[in-house]
Amino acid sequence: MPNIVTKFDRAAAEDVAALAKFGSATIHEAQGRLGAVSSRIKPIDRDMSLCGPAFTVTSAPRDNIMLQLAIHYAQPGDVIVVSAGEYEEAGCFGDVLGNACVAKGIAGVVTDTGVRDTAELIRLGLPVFSLSVCIKGTVKETLGETGRDIVFGGQTIRAGDVIRGDADGLVIVRKEDAAKVAELSQTREDAEAGYIADYKSGRTIIDVCNLEAVLKHKGLTTDLD
Amino acid sequence: MPNIVTKFDRAAAEDVAALAKFGSATIHEAQGRLGAVSSRIKPIDRDMSLCGPAFTVTSAPRDNIMLQLAIHYAQPGDVIVVSAGEYEEAGCFGDVLGNACVAKGIAGVVTDTGVRDTAELIRLGLPVFSLSVCIKGTVKETLGETGRDIVFGGQTIRAGDVIRGDADGLVIVRKEDAAKVAELSQTREDAEAGYIADYKSGRTIIDVCNLEAVLKHKGLTTDLD
Amino acid sequence: MPNIVTKFDRAAAEDVAALAKFGSATIHEAQGRLGAVSSRIKPIDRDMSLCGPAFTVTSAPRDNIMLQLAIHYAQPGDVIVVSAGEYEEAGCFGDVLGNACVAKGIAGVVTDTGVRDTAELIRLGLPVFSLSVCIKGTVKETLGETGRDIVFGGQTIRAGDVIRGDADGLVIVRKEDAAKVAELSQTREDAEAGYIADYKSGRTIIDVCNLEAVLKHKGLTTDLD
Amino acid sequence: MPNIVTKFDRAAAEDVAALAKFGSATIHEAQGRLGAVSSRIKPIDRDMSLCGPAFTVTSAPRDNIMLQLAIHYAQPGDVIVVSAGEYEEAGCFGDVLGNACVAKGIAGVVTDTGVRDTAELIRLGLPVFSLSVCIKGTVKETLGETGRDIVFGGQTIRAGDVIRGDADGLVIVRKEDAAKVAELSQTREDAEAGYIADYKSGRTIIDVCNLEAVLKHKGLTTDLD
Amino acid sequence: MPNIVTKFDRAAAEDVAALAKFGSATIHEAQGRLGAVSSRIKPIDRDMSLCGPAFTVTSAPRDNIMLQLAIHYAQPGDVIVVSAGEYEEAGCFGDVLGNACVAKGIAGVVTDTGVRDTAELIRLGLPVFSLSVCIKGTVKETLGETGRDIVFGGQTIRAGDVIRGDADGLVIVRKEDAAKVAELSQTREDAEAGYIADYKSGRTIIDVCNLEAVLKHKGLTTDLD
Amino acid sequence: MPNIVTKFDRAAAEDVAALAKFGSATIHEAQGRLGAVSSRIKPIDRDMSLCGPAFTVTSAPRDNIMLQLAIHYAQPGDVIVVSAGEYEEAGCFGDVLGNACVAKGIAGVVTDTGVRDTAELIRLGLPVFSLSVCIKGTVKETLGETGRDIVFGGQTIRAGDVIRGDADGLVIVRKEDAAKVAELSQTREDAEAGYIADYKSGRTIIDVCNLEAVLKHKGLTTDLD
Repeated sequence: MPNIVTKFDRAAAEDVAALAKFGSATIHEAQGRLGAVSSRIKPIDRDMSLCGPAFTVTSAPRDNIMLQLAIHYAQPGDVIVVSAGEYEEAGCFGDVLGNACVAKGIAGVVTDTGVRDTAELIRLGLPVFSLSVCIKGTVKETLGETGRDIVFGGQTIRAGDVIRGDADGLVIVRKEDAAKVAELSQTREDAEAGYIADYKSGRTIIDVCNLEAVLKHKGLTTDLD
Repeated sequence: MPNIVTKFDRAAAEDVAALAKFGSATIHEAQGRLGAVSSRIKPIDRDMSLCGPAFTVTSAPRDNIMLQLAIHYAQPGDVIVVSAGEYEEAGCFGDVLGNACVAKGIAGVVTDTGVRDTAELIRLGLPVFSLSVCIKGTVKETLGETGRDIVFGGQTIRAGDVIRGDADGLVIVRKEDAAKVAELSQTREDAEAGYIADYKSGRTIIDVCNLEAVLKHKGLTTDLD
Repeated sequence: MPNIVTKFDRAAAEDVAALAKFGSATIHEAQGRLGAVSSRIKPIDRDMSLCGPAFTVTSAPRDNIMLQLAIHYAQPGDVIVVSAGEYEEAGCFGDVLGNACVAKGIAGVVTDTGVRDTAELIRLGLPVFSLSVCIKGTVKETLGETGRDIVFGGQTIRAGDVIRGDADGLVIVRKEDAAKVAELSQTREDAEAGYIADYKSGRTIIDVCNLEAVLKHKGLTTDLD
Repeated sequence: MPNIVTKFDRAAAEDVAALAKFGSATIHEAQGRLGAVSSRIKPIDRDMSLCGPAFTVTSAPRDNIMLQLAIHYAQPGDVIVVSAGEYEEAGCFGDVLGNACVAKGIAGVVTDTGVRDTAELIRLGLPVFSLSVCIKGTVKETLGETGRDIVFGGQTIRAGDVIRGDADGLVIVRKEDAAKVAELSQTREDAEAGYIADYKSGRTIIDVCNLEAVLKHKGLTTDLD
Repeated sequence: MPNIVTKFDRAAAEDVAALAKFGSATIHEAQGRLGAVSSRIKPIDRDMSLCGPAFTVTSAPRDNIMLQLAIHYAQPGDVIVVSAGEYEEAGCFGDVLGNACVAKGIAGVVTDTGVRDTAELIRLGLPVFSLSVCIKGTVKETLGETGRDIVFGGQTIRAGDVIRGDADGLVIVRKEDAAKVAELSQTREDAEAGYIADYKSGRTIIDVCNLEAVLKHKGLTTDLD
Repeated sequence: MPNIVTKFDRAAAEDVAALAKFGSATIHEAQGRLGAVSSRIKPIDRDMSLCGPAFTVTSAPRDNIMLQLAIHYAQPGDVIVVSAGEYEEAGCFGDVLGNACVAKGIAGVVTDTGVRDTAELIRLGLPVFSLSVCIKGTVKETLGETGRDIVFGGQTIRAGDVIRGDADGLVIVRKEDAAKVAELSQTREDAEAGYIADYKSGRTIIDVCNLEAVLKHKGLTTDLD
């Protein structure tokens, strides 16, 4: 039954802000390698970056009525995430709706189908992540739902969960874990900074992680022995 | 039978110029969602843009003799469009032929196989749209035809039809419809400007298109009711 | 049996330097259309360019222990080439290891799986070629080999062979042929410069290669006859 | 945290039996076009058919330790469903484990990666659905979970939900809806039998659904008018 | 504008019958390697075979209203060919419509999207060629056209042209060429029978085609020299 | 330089015979998970099986002159293996050449491009493994080599190495290892028979491999604890 749900717990604004400081790969690692969206979904420009609570949308393939309604019903700061059947040959979003999103303060649009008017969208500065870029339009026939759990890029996304995207792709963080994951991300980034310092000094994994014995035990031989 | 046809009706220059002002997605919509080439064919640089009458070419896969002949026989302003079997692992066009095209005043090269020397082509400023970028060369064995109808990216393209491409992809306009489609594109762009103005003011599809009753009729419910 | 081989003949430094002056497509042609790696492997930024002896690595898919060991054992100037099963949904290399590579003087990293932290890698200036960009991490479980022949992107690469990459993709040159291929590349580039001069003057393949008789013999007809 | 959950509500046996009478396409339609798994997952033999509560498993790609544990912990009649990252170049299941499944009374095995020993599996009569057939083995390193919600082929599957598969593919039915969906499937099958009877008598959609006015209203014209 | 065209010249019945005796590969060769449909479109059972005049249909992706109308308006013996956007995740045709086709005497159904109820369709004996098998249903919203030229699988098909399919795939023959192509197919089959007789006697291409001199001229060397 | 090499060490006939008793997956495991060809290459009928020394061939894509020459020069019992660039839209082999192979006693044909006349090839009983089935013919222009190392489906194959194929796919065994690998395959099959007996008696991996302690150590918990 077609239904619009707009009232759901959103990740806390401070948690969203905290997560926005970290790259998608760092967050993915920090939370135990969970939440990575399919690598086929990428920003239309590699400088694009987004972070916000997901306003989830289910849509028929090649139909954008639900995306249009989502722009109406989403809150400022929301990232609209549209699950639309992974059809590459349709463009469900372009510059008209892009302007609507900017006017509403939408933090970004993410879809598993195509978008168009990419030059204008890049100029607008609205972060857009999609499966493809395609000029073919969509219809406005079939209603769906918003605010429910969706399957997107191999992940379940719940309304209000944090979605974070950058040049490397997208990651989902459960809203209740957002604060903790931001902390863990900082911990990981600090650890990585340490590793980088180590590695810059010319050390490598064998020195840093003291692997010599382990590798011997696993049977590794070298022509330096 | 191998044959070069060079004499065919080309879209009028003023119609080509009129269409060049509009994006491929706008034109596609304006003419009733016709003529969109497969989204797999894209410019090798997203700033590339082309518009011109198609000089159509049929070619064997992994063979560029016909593309070379097309450069000889095409007219200044023509866009050479080569249907060559959608083979990704061949590069049929590079900087030598790129220079030939520029010297001849060719308006662009479009192929459903690969190209190479992309850095030089970008420097040359010649618009090139292809399925892939591949260093593997082609042979010069099998003759084909020019100036005939071809199937390209899921569309039939007739010699002289307008082909328009930008970052979003390619669209075909029948030469006899070109003037009318340019008008319709202007109409659509004006309408879109109106929508954008509406949307910038914070209105959305429901307000702009007065959808409330329609959506209720379709059974849409919301948690705001 | 897991084994690290580090001592193998590397292409001579002057041959590597000589080859670095030519594009991958030119080299591929110059050596008789040999050595082209699959066009699916591309730089993460099109301005990236690399040339160096291959430090070959076999790796389990979704496992980067061997890549880490390769950074330890490779020599400055080597290009690390990892054959890891062409799995798009894994990122085996990011900014921490990127810094390690820069510290060690590694000339580039090439893999048939994914990488991540691409923004940082681009800032680092380390040339990286991959099948995909993916945030999903890898394990460190299964040992492999270095310094042996590998199959990569449809080519056999021997340790110490030259690997050359640019925006168009990657090509392999046998180390014993490197000097000769550099010469042949220069010859080809000179020839291409001649063709370009010819073509810039408005001549085309028919004039330059004196094809008129050949084409007639092959049965080509034109509407100009 | 790796965890085996074995105790979860399973769809009632009589509901499973009731659903097993209907094809996957019928069930999909009957429940309102929900629950269709990606069409890329197919039986290794088109005569294979399965129906049972899902014993859900999360697995690392190219690792079958969790599938092995699932065989240990699943109940007779369960269908083991393994979400393993959609990697085509790995075979996680073959005749040894196939015999284990038959001994345990497992109703079928479904995976989004590859399987092998297909001739023996077909002889065994165990229904197996997979993304690919591949001889490459897997490791047994990384633990995962069983009995939790998984994302599989674009669907969320909860432990104990009904999974039904035949030559056309797979569909999921929520356990609490199973009885109702079986009824609706019977209703649909009866309706289809009516349509078939109608159509066999030479009538078509226009007669059966009384569409003539609707089509005229939509602007349809014919050369019979 | 949505329009049904039913009156078009169909290939003569005797030409269709003559072509039905030859395999699709033979016909493709006999007419000069023209008319081959993309190899991605295959019969749902390899014993299926069809030959008839094409009743061409344009359809929106994931919409089967036009296919339903085609069953109403096509003539007995026609093959319904639906161009619907190459979307794999939709099943536009199943056993209900299959029965309608059989009742109407339709000679086969060919589509560039998916079908379902394959077990029943095989039992019905109706030849069906498709891009995929998928249980997901379609809508009935968007009107299209019948009886016009369509682009299908990389070919232009005109209404009334002959479409011939078997286990190897599909080929198109222009209706005006059908008689001639049937003759040429017989000639080719006779020639092939001659070659087969030659080859069965142990001769090979070098003997049969007298290639020794040609190969030497091309520079071929052997270790038997 | 085009060259035919026919004289190379072939795996011993008794080793070939010994390997033919085992499935491709068993052999792959027995030799330490080496030699698996890409799972995209499959028999055109799942009952097909082959085993023999590889007569290796390099071919231009969409060109079958070298395959024809291979039939001339190969020995009875050889499996002709053609590396031709992984182009799906070409059929390089059909029933005429199939009859030639049978007449010459060729043990099978394996290619990384397409074949055609599959119904006749199945009737002939010649084992054929390919990337695709396609009716589009090839040219006979470009010479290559036979009897050299080739890259095929991600593996290096040397002339005379054993290639073994069945419904699951293809595996390569180095000729010098063939006897040993046959022994190891027998050992593995015996071990698997033991496992099957164990598993048939209702035991599973935990009992058979005594995993309980290991799993606890890895942190596995269950709801049965």
